[in-house]
Amino acid sequence: MGQTLTEKILEDHLVEGELETGEEIGIEIDQVLTQDTTGTLVWLQFEALDLDDVQTELAAQYCDHQTYQFDFKNTDDHRFLRSAAGTFGAHFSRPGNGICHNVHKENFAAPGKTMLGSDSHTPTPGGLGELAIGSGGLDVAVAMGGGPYYIEMPEVVNVRLEGELPDWATAKDVILELLRRLSVKGGVGKVLEYTGPGVETLTVPERTTITNMGTELGATTSIFPTDEETEDYLSRLGREDEYVEIGPDEDAEYADEIVVDLSDLEPLIAQPSMPDNVVPVSEVAGTEVDQCIIGSCTNGAYEDILPAAKMLEGREINKTTDLIVAPGSKQASELLAREGWVAEMMAAGVNFSEATCGACIGIGHVPASDSVSLRTFNRNFEGRSGIEDDSVYLCSPEVATAAALKGEIVDPRDLADELGDLEAPGLEMPEKYDGSKADLISPDEAPDDGLIKGPNIGDVPLKDELDSHLAGPTLLKMEDNITTDHIIPATQDILMYRSNIPKLSEFTLSRVDDEFAQRALDADGGFLVAGENYGQGSSREHAALCPMYLGVEGVLAQSFARIHKANLFNFGLIPLEIDEETYEKIDEGDDVEIVDDVAEAVRSGQEEFTVRVNDDWEATAHLDASAREREILADGGKLSHTKKQAESGGDSPAPADD
Amino acid sequence: MGQTLTEKILEDHLVEGELETGEEIGIEIDQVLTQDTTGTLVWLQFEALDLDDVQTELAAQYCDHQTYQFDFKNTDDHRFLRSAAGTFGAHFSRPGNGICHNVHKENFAAPGKTMLGSDSHTPTPGGLGELAIGSGGLDVAVAMGGGPYYIEMPEVVNVRLEGELPDWATAKDVILELLRRLSVKGGVGKVLEYTGPGVETLTVPERTTITNMGTELGATTSIFPTDEETEDYLSRLGREDEYVEIGPDEDAEYADEIVVDLSDLEPLIAQPSMPDNVVPVSEVAGTEVDQCIIGSCTNGAYEDILPAAKMLEGREINKTTDLIVAPGSKQASELLAREGWVAEMMAAGVNFSEATCGACIGIGHVPASDSVSLRTFNRNFEGRSGIEDDSVYLCSPEVATAAALKGEIVDPRDLADELGDLEAPGLEMPEKYDGSKADLISPDEAPDDGLIKGPNIGDVPLKDELDSHLAGPTLLKMEDNITTDHIIPATQDILMYRSNIPKLSEFTLSRVDDEFAQRALDADGGFLVAGENYGQGSSREHAALCPMYLGVEGVLAQSFARIHKANLFNFGLIPLEIDEETYEKIDEGDDVEIVDDVAEAVRSGQEEFTVRVNDDWEATAHLDASAREREILADGGKLSHTKKQAESGGDSPAPADD
Repeated sequence: MGQTLTEKILEDHLVEGELETGEEIGIEIDQVLTQDTTGTLVWLQFEALDLDDVQTELAAQYCDHQTYQFDFKNTDDHRFLRSAAGTFGAHFSRPGNGICHNVHKENFAAPGKTMLGSDSHTPTPGGLGELAIGSGGLDVAVAMGGGPYYIEMPEVVNVRLEGELPDWATAKDVILELLRRLSVKGGVGKVLEYTGPGVETLTVPERTTITNMGTELGATTSIFPTDEETEDYLSRLGREDEYVEIGPDEDAEYADEIVVDLSDLEPLIAQPSMPDNVVPVSEVAGTEVDQCIIGSCTNGAYEDILPAAKMLEGREINKTTDLIVAPGSKQASELLAREGWVAEMMAAGVNFSEATCGACIGIGHVPASDSVSLRTFNRNFEGRSGIEDDSVYLCSPEVATAAALKGEIVDPRDLADELGDLEAPGLEMPEKYDGSKADLISPDEAPDDGLIKGPNIGDVPLKDELDSHLAGPTLLKMEDNITTDHIIPATQDILMYRSNIPKLSEFTLSRVDDEFAQRALDADGGFLVAGENYGQGSSREHAALCPMYLGVEGVLAQSFARIHKANLFNFGLIPLEIDEETYEKIDEGDDVEIVDDVAEAVRSGQEEFTVRVNDDWEATAHLDASAREREILADGGKLSHTKKQAESGGDSPAPADD
Repeated sequence: MGQTLTEKILEDHLVEGELETGEEIGIEIDQVLTQDTTGTLVWLQFEALDLDDVQTELAAQYCDHQTYQFDFKNTDDHRFLRSAAGTFGAHFSRPGNGICHNVHKENFAAPGKTMLGSDSHTPTPGGLGELAIGSGGLDVAVAMGGGPYYIEMPEVVNVRLEGELPDWATAKDVILELLRRLSVKGGVGKVLEYTGPGVETLTVPERTTITNMGTELGATTSIFPTDEETEDYLSRLGREDEYVEIGPDEDAEYADEIVVDLSDLEPLIAQPSMPDNVVPVSEVAGTEVDQCIIGSCTNGAYEDILPAAKMLEGREINKTTDLIVAPGSKQASELLAREGWVAEMMAAGVNFSEATCGACIGIGHVPASDSVSLRTFNRNFEGRSGIEDDSVYLCSPEVATAAALKGEIVDPRDLADELGDLEAPGLEMPEKYDGSKADLISPDEAPDDGLIKGPNIGDVPLKDELDSHLAGPTLLKMEDNITTDHIIPATQDILMYRSNIPKLSEFTLSRVDDEFAQRALDADGGFLVAGENYGQGSSREHAALCPMYLGVEGVLAQSFARIHKANLFNFGLIPLEIDEETYEKIDEGDDVEIVDDVAEAVRSGQEEFTVRVNDDWEATAHLDASAREREILADGGKLSHTKKQAESGGDSPAPADD
């Protein structure tokens, strides 16, 4: 039986398990990527592991989320990251050099490699045949230490592309069409592998727009085979020697197949406030637009901005619409500046920004109240733009530019008819991507003189081995569907403490009960109680780390969200499932004791635990965990576990086999 | 007896008083300028005056301080300002189009005109022979309504320039040298008029660097005569028809004379944390530098950035030093982009920002903790950069660029020796300033469809006429030297409420007593008591408006800072001077009653008032006010006063005489 491309790459990197859907496998990681809001914790964890040097083929630290540096804590984070990259041997990309995914694509992404990144849009290089997966920061730290990455073997789905995009339809419309069809949950547990005759009609920049935004389908990752387009792109980057021809076997078996005829596509738009709320642009034409932004890791490349620049040449934007262009990389900015396009855009009324994620995560250029913003980004979750009740639409650069010119949403084909002289800009790549690399500092060039920690950068707390006896008060009783945003809010005023666990912990669950953190600290031990689906939302590991710092020993919930449960293991908090009756009966303040020898029971594979409440009544709680997860939990979390393994001469983390 | 240039322009615009030093004069205003942190209040006041249209020759509303738009309140402010400009007839410069002083200089500044602006660096166009004065927003609103601007006739000081600047010395070094000699108080109550043979050796962009930063000397304004350089500059702007030859009479008499020999100057630098803490760069050479920023209204012009670009061409900045270039106007950005310089700067490692005040007021690119930042700005007050205990140095673009290349402070002459091929870049103007005007929306082009107020934009509270009987509790007793920063802090979290007086008022005096605002509201009347020099610092009128909103009736202080005292009149709060004994005796919470018929006494010119405390003891308080100030105070502040005059058919505000 033939293999999919995904299976081939996984097999090449397999160090544990078998490639059976749903089974846990361990794979070797070639490249890692971190950014500034997750990277500080990654390096603090790397430091806590007592490791000297990065063991992967390549590690790259980018500064892209808070490059406007609103607060000295942001600037301190960037300085710390530079010092960590220099000390431990990673490439360092300075603030202003661009978004991690764009800069990585330009400089490091390569066919056949595996990559782990502490950012959800890590799958971007799938457009060049790299298998790239987003994860929590601790997994990245361990991978940098040479340890394998563990994941349940996903289903591989064939997305078969046919035909060719017509004028004014773009790669963005391909992924918007998939979101329209599959919804934001349609890719969960799956790798989307693109095949079919439509593939060769798409350039690599178009492919990476699709793989990037595959994240919004919930996919583990997305990947394209390589071909002449890939080779051509690498050659323009001056990296033709990194080209490898890879693809699925002809008789590869997929779990499912989806067919998209590119020639059927038209300009699409995701309405507020979900990326899958997709309709043809024409359906919402006429909506007045206050702000348009072109940029982000999805549509911030040279090839994304050039069409906008061509459309703007010799024109002026509408007087009551702002148009901000924030390139995805400084290389894109530099090439566009060198060719005169930056001047043309400015002349048309564009506010040309430094290269940054910025507005995509609500940092800068927050929309006005009760206004419409069209953005070429990948997410329009309510409030993500920085204001509650926002109206953010997602679309291609062409659609955003058309709206900026007209002052309202308009199908660019209709605008072209109206103006008479507006041509479909198409897609054009530069002859050579020959921008400067001044802002990408290699491990050799970076000063190796230790970590520079500002006053806001603390250490990562380590947890001791799990106790035999766990007892303490019920610190908080919560309802169903508590999200990681409830546990650790992501707003800017709190975000800036991501490197400072003691301070960040003060905000733990503050949206539920603003006295919780102090109560937990005072109690020095205890449990959280919650209803169904506890910990849903982002993969933010701070949502487990901060409760751990406050002394929380475990969580009793009716059910857990998958990623958060993994994070609870990773930070040494026992996640126990309880039934509805127990949930109803237990109250905040009740004294809880786990009657079993917890450490022993966890290691031995015991699934049922006896919980004694107020020395009065008992209930059964359930632990659902793999053998690996049990070892991690019993050792006090993944950091302590990994450290213990290294000290005992175990094989993880260990030098990579190069 | 001959006249100074200042006297000539004032005489041309005089509507009240005589040109005697220290006497109050009223002058007609030709142009007004506002920006986004002061402009919202200006227009709310203009609205409160029930006026229909701007009456000055020209009004221009710029958006430059918070163009990164951290919060929707910033974006709402910009939208409101656009709607106000359209509704009332002002030019509107969009966020991203540049700093008010730079854009005004390029588009509107003209010899012989008078200008009032609600920004302290309003004197910038003095470099083109315009008499431009910074003031509070209410004065700007009244001037826009056609009312005269009242000011004490300043002394006119002759700053005689001789010689010519040597290589590597710049206009920035001229003003730094004056600061070194005169200190930040050296220009208080004075107009600095530049004369002498050195004038013609300076281009207009150099002159405006000097007039701009004259503000740091405390000067009322600074002004140059016009000559061939002025005509040439206006001609490159396409505004040669606005040239007028103006200058002092040969036998003009000045209050004082200062001589600066330009040929003696060398690269200078202001050390932390005061603009007059000036030494030669060589004295602090070797200091490690983490961040350099080129921009601001002082050194953000095309002519300021081009030398930096030339120095950077073909080079790369130091790996551990960040260099941010934030142009003063989009025109500068566009011209530099068109000529390839933006690409060159990016290639060298520059983070190229949108055109903004930004970092100069601590908005974005805040320095890292315990780090050195070199900036081409005009102020380095402690904490202004956004972090307490900062180390901000002020210098020319050449010195900042040299530091970015070397990674430490270095005299650029020494760096030139070291590198061998680094030439002094000199100063070069573009043939034509032919950038786009897409972002400068004229009153005709702007939508005239009413004010758009977001939820954070309130109305301006109006005060009733002064009561005959004033009595209430002592709401707060304060020490000497309370600043306007104590009264209304200027940090970003509070700054965003500048258009929302009820909300902003909650922060009134919170740095002294965080329960003050609620206490004052509850009391609904009462007095503040303070020691010497109450209200020193900025001209922020919110420091009078917010106490007024909270119901405060007056301030009893040992002495008042000049501008704040004027603001107290403007917002209808009676400023009474008390002696030390009274200050010592009165306590917080004491009941205070002014025994006189206050309204009558204020209008009649009475200077001594009897204050009765706790119905127990009495003291004498003193009111020092001009007849005009007494009328304003008695009418309930300048807004109510102006409105009353307009309603009674008085001549202010009235149409300008064109």
